[in-house]
Amino acid sequence: MAGPATYFSPAHAEALDPATRDLVQRRARVLGSAYRLFYDEPVRLVRGSGTKVYDADGVEYLDAYNNVPSVGHSHPRVTAAMTHQAGLITTHTRYLSEGIVAYAEDLLSTLPERIDNIMFTCTGSEANDLALRIAKLVTGGEGVIVTANAYHGVTTEVAAISPSLGGVESVAEWTRVVRAPGTDVDLGEAVAAAVSELEAFGIRTAALIVDTVFASDGVYPDLPGLDRAVAAVRAAGGLFIADEVQPGFGRLGHGMWGFDRYGIVPDLVTVGKPMGNGQPIAAVMAPHALIDRFNERSRYFNTFGGSSVSIAAAQATLDVLRDERLIENARDVGGYLLGSLRATGLFTEVRGAGLFIGAQLESADRAVAAVNALRERRVLLSASGAGNDSLKIRPPLPFSRDDADRLLTELEAVLR
Amino acid sequence: MAGPATYFSPAHAEALDPATRDLVQRRARVLGSAYRLFYDEPVRLVRGSGTKVYDADGVEYLDAYNNVPSVGHSHPRVTAAMTHQAGLITTHTRYLSEGIVAYAEDLLSTLPERIDNIMFTCTGSEANDLALRIAKLVTGGEGVIVTANAYHGVTTEVAAISPSLGGVESVAEWTRVVRAPGTDVDLGEAVAAAVSELEAFGIRTAALIVDTVFASDGVYPDLPGLDRAVAAVRAAGGLFIADEVQPGFGRLGHGMWGFDRYGIVPDLVTVGKPMGNGQPIAAVMAPHALIDRFNERSRYFNTFGGSSVSIAAAQATLDVLRDERLIENARDVGGYLLGSLRATGLFTEVRGAGLFIGAQLESADRAVAAVNALRERRVLLSASGAGNDSLKIRPPLPFSRDDADRLLTELEAVLR
Repeated sequence: MAGPATYFSPAHAEALDPATRDLVQRRARVLGSAYRLFYDEPVRLVRGSGTKVYDADGVEYLDAYNNVPSVGHSHPRVTAAMTHQAGLITTHTRYLSEGIVAYAEDLLSTLPERIDNIMFTCTGSEANDLALRIAKLVTGGEGVIVTANAYHGVTTEVAAISPSLGGVESVAEWTRVVRAPGTDVDLGEAVAAAVSELEAFGIRTAALIVDTVFASDGVYPDLPGLDRAVAAVRAAGGLFIADEVQPGFGRLGHGMWGFDRYGIVPDLVTVGKPMGNGQPIAAVMAPHALIDRFNERSRYFNTFGGSSVSIAAAQATLDVLRDERLIENARDVGGYLLGSLRATGLFTEVRGAGLFIGAQLESADRAVAAVNALRERRVLLSASGAGNDSLKIRPPLPFSRDDADRLLTELEAVLR
Repeated sequence: MAGPATYFSPAHAEALDPATRDLVQRRARVLGSAYRLFYDEPVRLVRGSGTKVYDADGVEYLDAYNNVPSVGHSHPRVTAAMTHQAGLITTHTRYLSEGIVAYAEDLLSTLPERIDNIMFTCTGSEANDLALRIAKLVTGGEGVIVTANAYHGVTTEVAAISPSLGGVESVAEWTRVVRAPGTDVDLGEAVAAAVSELEAFGIRTAALIVDTVFASDGVYPDLPGLDRAVAAVRAAGGLFIADEVQPGFGRLGHGMWGFDRYGIVPDLVTVGKPMGNGQPIAAVMAPHALIDRFNERSRYFNTFGGSSVSIAAAQATLDVLRDERLIENARDVGGYLLGSLRATGLFTEVRGAGLFIGAQLESADRAVAAVNALRERRVLLSASGAGNDSLKIRPPLPFSRDDADRLLTELEAVLR
């Protein structure tokens, strides 16, 4: 990722209070160098409720960032469902269970009819990894096309299609990275060119995979050309994988899925992060014909994938999403926030849909300074985009108009 | 896997009672062909406690198979810890938290001093995938050596080192499969030969990875030659990855880890299944020098890896393991069971340590018939090994001498 980071630097440890410094140092000794903390002054969260989180001193923060606790931090219905199930039994899918079948039916009913099978995993990384395995095996192809600053996860296979992790030079030789979005390059033309280039190298196209809100590319909810990109890939015998790990489950305020905005029916759909409101559950969904062809050739069993407590959490999360009308709230408050952010005149560009907004500033320096200043004013968010110059606003879905006003007030204070 | 399977065949659906048949058919429609059920007559588990599980009709079964609920089904202390934490907050590791640091310190204290860093994932597959990424990046090698019927997980990368999934022909071109254990081939000599063969192909050896109880190979707790195998790999610049997903956390009744039996200090250790008593949590542990070299070149963040509720479950599981002296119980009851099984004279060979036992029969047919007959007598276990001819006995660790006697009685009834 280009530009200055929004992460804590160990060089600043001396500026911390003794208790925080001690914990930071103990943490570094055992968790090691991979574990980075947000902010110049890390936050120690001990409690949360709805859109608010609280640190060890009881200080309240407005959470404008976390998409995993999607129906609100520590939602009592999700906690109750997990507690109830954990008190009964937690098992894997080699035994019969009503819960997983009912949840699968419920979730699949929100997708196009063609997509009628689901396979559970624990993380979005595992889901994308499995989707690629299926696509490669079914198509007989190997080539995968992704966007400029794509992020699809951290297994070996999906890290190899994630230029956001280590730059374009870090991806696999069978990966093609198109210079869209965030440039003048048209996605449809770029993907068609990538298919041709793969063919020129003797590599058959297995899949185009995109995060349908292009989150790590800087948030682009309505990118022109996705339909033509999908058509070019299908014409070459490849499949379209909609990575709904970030946009899915209603965050965009319009239906359940990011691909709904485009009128495209994907071949494979992956979901994760908000699915269990924090419980590790994710999935791949696809037409049964694709799943059958994969299973004729390969075996797949995920010990924790679809285990009882994870399913209970996922069902409760889906129920709350509907009962509390959180998609409607995302549309309403997201629309209000988007309009208000644009009206401030403080941003180069404000892109977004529902409660997924990228508010671009002049530079990464300015974005990172704003992120840290907001944290001091008790509002949590982060930066995003290839240039790390966009504020990433992606709160729990119960975010209210009052929450939006508080965010706007603090943003104005920090940026003016 | 060779031989007849211990799985339900949809062709037998007509033999089921109407309610079960209906659920099986609904399940097949949405979960698809990957989701296989144990037994000719599937079991629908709705409740569990300790070593007992109960079906929808309230019928009790003795669980002699499940290693994930390692400290006992629905252990109240684990449930309470998860409930407490879920009611407070579930967050990822970009915020400071005392719990993850304390747990990391606690767990690492059970390993050799050299292994001082931990990285959390959600599944054993993710842990092995990450361990391979680290090993390949740090050594600059690509070659990986595994045992005959190895199973290390289901991501693309680790499926490519798991001959148990699709046979030797399914592994990657950089994987070498040695014909041990379960044959006359010496592991040390076979691994040394594999290193030479990789070199002959111009492939540098990155790692030897073994499940230290060789579970999918048929359970071999004290395989001669592992020390020489590790030495051969290290002499070639490769690393030794101890896959403790199955043997770890005291199951073998002797210390916490399978590698303890061999007096070998691994370079990387992976853990999973029993770690959170059912909660999806797993990890890679390694010397910080290896982790640092990986992080200089790559980034890794796992959204759900080490999240608050998973850590709470893992800490409670570790506390119960100690407080209820379950390692001692595994040694005591496991030793009793091992001796008693051998004394029956019913088995070709009985191998095992603690509560991880492979009891080999004359054929896969006989093993599968026994598994199904035991299920009818309300004892749950399964078959294992390259020939699928060994009963896999791997119960929750609170398995008592009474439980062992019940298992022995039913085994005698079924096999005589």
